[in-house]
Amino acid sequence: MRTQVAIIGAGPAGLLLGRLLERAGIDAVILERRSQDHVLGRIRAGVLEQGSVALLDRAGVGARMHAEGLVHGGIAISFDGDRHRFDFRALVGRTVTVYGQTEVTRDLMRARDASGAKTVYEAEDVSLHDLDGDSPKVRFVKDGIAREIACDFVAGCDGYHGVSRASVPEGALRTYERVYPFGWLGILVDRPPVSEELVYAHHARGFALCSMRSPTRSRYYVQVPAGEKPEAWPDDRFWDELRRRLDPETAERLVTGPSIEKSIAPLRSFVAEPLRFGRLFLAGDAAHIVPPTGAKGLNLALNDVGCLAEALTEFYLERSAAGIDRYSDRVLKRVWKAERFSWWMTSVLHTFPETDAFGRRIQRAEFDYLVGSEAASRSLAENYTGLPL
Amino acid sequence: MRTQVAIIGAGPAGLLLGRLLERAGIDAVILERRSQDHVLGRIRAGVLEQGSVALLDRAGVGARMHAEGLVHGGIAISFDGDRHRFDFRALVGRTVTVYGQTEVTRDLMRARDASGAKTVYEAEDVSLHDLDGDSPKVRFVKDGIAREIACDFVAGCDGYHGVSRASVPEGALRTYERVYPFGWLGILVDRPPVSEELVYAHHARGFALCSMRSPTRSRYYVQVPAGEKPEAWPDDRFWDELRRRLDPETAERLVTGPSIEKSIAPLRSFVAEPLRFGRLFLAGDAAHIVPPTGAKGLNLALNDVGCLAEALTEFYLERSAAGIDRYSDRVLKRVWKAERFSWWMTSVLHTFPETDAFGRRIQRAEFDYLVGSEAASRSLAENYTGLPL
Repeated sequence: MRTQVAIIGAGPAGLLLGRLLERAGIDAVILERRSQDHVLGRIRAGVLEQGSVALLDRAGVGARMHAEGLVHGGIAISFDGDRHRFDFRALVGRTVTVYGQTEVTRDLMRARDASGAKTVYEAEDVSLHDLDGDSPKVRFVKDGIAREIACDFVAGCDGYHGVSRASVPEGALRTYERVYPFGWLGILVDRPPVSEELVYAHHARGFALCSMRSPTRSRYYVQVPAGEKPEAWPDDRFWDELRRRLDPETAERLVTGPSIEKSIAPLRSFVAEPLRFGRLFLAGDAAHIVPPTGAKGLNLALNDVGCLAEALTEFYLERSAAGIDRYSDRVLKRVWKAERFSWWMTSVLHTFPETDAFGRRIQRAEFDYLVGSEAASRSLAENYTGLPL
Repeated sequence: MRTQVAIIGAGPAGLLLGRLLERAGIDAVILERRSQDHVLGRIRAGVLEQGSVALLDRAGVGARMHAEGLVHGGIAISFDGDRHRFDFRALVGRTVTVYGQTEVTRDLMRARDASGAKTVYEAEDVSLHDLDGDSPKVRFVKDGIAREIACDFVAGCDGYHGVSRASVPEGALRTYERVYPFGWLGILVDRPPVSEELVYAHHARGFALCSMRSPTRSRYYVQVPAGEKPEAWPDDRFWDELRRRLDPETAERLVTGPSIEKSIAPLRSFVAEPLRFGRLFLAGDAAHIVPPTGAKGLNLALNDVGCLAEALTEFYLERSAAGIDRYSDRVLKRVWKAERFSWWMTSVLHTFPETDAFGRRIQRAEFDYLVGSEAASRSLAENYTGLPL
C-alpha cells in the first residue's frame, strides 16, 4: 500500500488532519489501534476555542457543532465562596463553544466515511520505519495479516501513549514534564447543568468544576489526591463534596442525579520537542499534554494539525519545504503559552499539599487581582478563548 | 511627655506619617533608635510609584524630588539575551520616578527639622506598653535617662526588626513568609547608568538589574546564592558576571568603575496581619516585606502611612473611629496584591535551584507571553507603576 501521508491515530487530531489533507487533494491513510466504537466511547474535553470552531468550519464539519454546541460568553470563578463572572465577549469580543470531543470525533468520522477515504481501525502492532529517510514505512497487522504502507510523511496523532513519539530515537527529543499530586474525579449525569456557563471553584478542600455537555447533561469534577479510586466515591459522597466546594448560591442550585460515568484523570504537563523527527511530525497529545484546567488540550491538538495540514499542502502544491521546516517552531510557541496558562490556572485553583500559608494567600491575591483588574481579566479571557497563532 | 501619636522609627514611613499628621494639626513625636546620620547612610530602594510622588507632593516635600528625580516611562526586561521595553506611558499612561529612598528621607527630615516637630534620635531601649488600653505608653532611654511618652496611638514604622511588631502578644498576629534561596549583591558606582531606564535581566546564570540613582550614579545587582559574602566579589568579578547576564547590546554599553558601596540583601516575602493591635498600628516593613524585584517596598510603606494619616485625621477631626477600624483591611488588600506581584516578578526573573527544565520553559513562556500580549504588558505596567488603593 502507498499513500502520501500516513496518519497514526483516529482521534480528533488525526481525523481533522485527514480531512484537511483530503480537501487539499493529498492522499492519506489513517491507522487506528482501537475500534471506531472504542474511540467514540472515550469521554473527553468539551470546550472549543473560537479558532478551533473556525478550523472545523474550514474543514466542512461544523454544521452539527453550530446546531448543537453551546456558545459561552464567559466563565465564572468561585474562590472560597466568592463568585465572579469573567465576560469574555466584553473583555476580548470572543466566545468558546461547548461541544464534546466525542461529537467532534463523530462528525469527522462521518465526513471521512462519506468521502471513502481509507481508515484502518483495529490496526495492531503498528511500527514506524525509515523515518529519517525519504520514504518512511508504517507496518501493522490487520486481521492477522502483516501489512506495510510506504509514504512520504508520517503524522503522529496517536496520543501520549502512542507509538509515534516512542519511535523517535533516544536523545532526539527533549522532554519537559510536571506531574501534579492530584487528579480530577469526574462524573457525567443526565441533569441540567447548575449554571449555563462553566464554574471553576477553588476551595480549601480542593478544586471543583461545573461543566456540561448539553442543556440536559452535566459534567462535574472534584480534585482528589493522586492514587484515589472512583470506587471510593459513591454518588452521594461526590455530590456532598462538590457542594461544599462551591459558593453557596451555586451549591443551592445544583441538581443531582445518578452518575452515568465516573472516572479519575491524572493531571500532567508535558512537552516533547521538536515536533519533528525526519519525516515524522508529532501533533496533539503525542507531543504535549496540558492539565485540563485551561481547557486547552483538544484545542492545541486541532491547532497543531491545522498548521501541519497547511505545511504539507505547501509541500505538495508549492513544492516548498518551508512550511514543514517551520512547523515545529511555529506550533511550539503557542503550545508553550498554553502550557503556561494551563499550569497557571491549575496552580491558582487547586490546593497543593506543599503550599504553605503564604502560598495560599498568594492564590487568593491572584483571584482578587484578576477580579479587580481589567488587564488581568482580559489576559485570562484571551488565553481561555485562545491566543492567536 | 505627652503626645497624640507616638511614631516609632524615623525612616521614610515614620517621617511621612509625622509630616502628614503635623499638617492636619495632630501632635506626634518620633522616636528613632539610630542617629540621623545613620538613617541617612542606609542605601535602599529608589523607584517611586506615581501615587507615592503624589503623596509626597501632598505632604509638601516634593520640590527636590521633581527637580532631581528621573521620570521613567518604562522598563526593559532582558530574557536570555532578548530585550524588550515595556512602555508604561503607552500601556497605562503612568510613570515611575527614580529618586532614592535616602533622598526622600532627607527631604522629610529637613521639613521636620524646619517645623520644629519633635524627633528623638538615638532613643535606646524603646518599649511599648498598655497597647490594648486607651492610653498606651512608650518608654525609652535617652542620654542615659529613662523617659516615658503617654499617647493616644502608637504607629509602628520601625521596620522588620523593630520593637513594634515584636510588642504584639504571641498569637495576636498571623504571619506569612517566604524566604528565597538567594540574595542581591548590589554595588553603587559613580558612572552613568548603562540605560536611561531600568533593565531587569533573566539569565541561566541568575538575575541581574541595572538601576541608577542619578544620571551619573549607577546601581547594579546580580543574584547570588544565599549566604554569599560581598568579599567574595571583587569589582572585576562583579562586572564580569553582570555583563554575562545582560543582553549583548546592554552589556556592550556598560561603563564600569570602582564600586563605592557593595552589599548583599536577602530576599523575603513577609506579611503580619492585622496591621493593628489595640492602639498600635503597624506600617511599612514593620508589617510586610516584599522582595525588591517589583520595587514595591518603599511604595507600600508610603501608602500605608498615607492611609493611616487619613484614618487618624478622621479620628481627631471628625471624632470617628471608622477610618482607624478600616485601616488594616484597607491597606492589606493592596499589600497582598503587591506581595503577589513582587513574588511573581521574582519567580519569573530569578533562577531557583529547585526549578526543573519544565519550570525554566514556563519562565520563558511568561516572558514571551508578556512581550506578545497587550493585556499582559498592561498588567505588568499597572502593577509596576502602582495599583490604585
